[in-house]
Amino acid sequence: MTQSELSPTPRSTVRRGAPRAVLDRSGLTDVLDAGLVCHLGLLIDGAPVVLPTGYGYEGDTLYLHGSSGAGSLRAAATGVPVSVAITLLDGIVYARAAFHHSVNYRSAVIHGTAAPVTEDAAKLHAMQVITEHLAPGSWDYSRRPTAKEMAKTAVLALDLTEASVKVRNGPPVDDEDDVAKGSTWAGVLPLHTAWGAVKPCPLLPADVDPPAHISTRPRPFANPDS
Amino acid sequence: MTQSELSPTPRSTVRRGAPRAVLDRSGLTDVLDAGLVCHLGLLIDGAPVVLPTGYGYEGDTLYLHGSSGAGSLRAAATGVPVSVAITLLDGIVYARAAFHHSVNYRSAVIHGTAAPVTEDAAKLHAMQVITEHLAPGSWDYSRRPTAKEMAKTAVLALDLTEASVKVRNGPPVDDEDDVAKGSTWAGVLPLHTAWGAVKPCPLLPADVDPPAHISTRPRPFANPDS
Repeated sequence: MTQSELSPTPRSTVRRGAPRAVLDRSGLTDVLDAGLVCHLGLLIDGAPVVLPTGYGYEGDTLYLHGSSGAGSLRAAATGVPVSVAITLLDGIVYARAAFHHSVNYRSAVIHGTAAPVTEDAAKLHAMQVITEHLAPGSWDYSRRPTAKEMAKTAVLALDLTEASVKVRNGPPVDDEDDVAKGSTWAGVLPLHTAWGAVKPCPLLPADVDPPAHISTRPRPFANPDS
Repeated sequence: MTQSELSPTPRSTVRRGAPRAVLDRSGLTDVLDAGLVCHLGLLIDGAPVVLPTGYGYEGDTLYLHGSSGAGSLRAAATGVPVSVAITLLDGIVYARAAFHHSVNYRSAVIHGTAAPVTEDAAKLHAMQVITEHLAPGSWDYSRRPTAKEMAKTAVLALDLTEASVKVRNGPPVDDEDDVAKGSTWAGVLPLHTAWGAVKPCPLLPADVDPPAHISTRPRPFANPDS
């Protein structure tokens, strides 16, 4: 992945909280790497709809997928504008003033036009990228999709060029008067995520152990504030 | 909160994965209670934009807030259609087939028209609801907003009537042929969230301890699959 600067357009330029904007490309890939699901926004019958879905990315391309029968995917596949947000919540910021309460987070918002990926080899590759993002190691370990399964899957590609990345970390930012009082606790309650113990499928023979790519999977969206 | 049935409309009716749809009102409030941030989708200059933001709810009303200078909030405050999604990711579902990989999750997607809350008492109350959702106990513990701070905050109200709730939990659902082979591990890797150790603001006197509503805050969006 080329480490280049993002090229903000008017709609991807962070206007509020400008000090939190991240303008280099690695900031975007950091969020994409850490996230597990995204929120896809698109217009259906003239109204915006936001849906959670899986994703993967390679180079400058974000891939999304879903059932080929889903109305949302059908709508997006016609080449309509979409927006995709990936958000990692890292902590609650308790300030001395209610107004200055905030959250520590990393977020990326991508704008663009989603194009359907229909050619067999390209679609299979996109499905590999999405599978490996959600479940690294699964593409080689599990059974590959059949032609019938591929037909049931709709894949969309979205250019990552137009993206805005925002990061907040660190302590609350309170007014001097409130800080001077020194009586109200203020600080950050970090939010951590971790994998629990694997729960084998009840239909699995007892002697089948989980492979290392599952049993030793690194902690998801590890909090940089921890 | 009245425990009533949700009234699905065509756009809020879950078409895909219908067995995962939750039709009672408590399913919606379960997701709203467990979530910390939402994703707001709205149209800006004709294109959909998805943004992460805080929320709170009371009865049948969802409240969102943001800077009164933010373009997204200004756009939503004009009474345009919006969509709000709240998603809790509970685990990665490793199936025997790549195609059947999935996630365990709880999600709510709300559709409606956001209305600005501008009357002082109603706005202050909405800010209390939002603050108490993100940081329970903070409204009484921290300094209340001044008139100037209230003017800097835009608050939106959205009716919760039109909502769809989906929940997936449990093991993978694989094809019989793949299950019969019995050689590929399949199951769920649960995702847990937990608060870390509080990080006091560096400007805080050393003798100020965090109050109980912060130091003993219950684990966020506790995974029902754990």
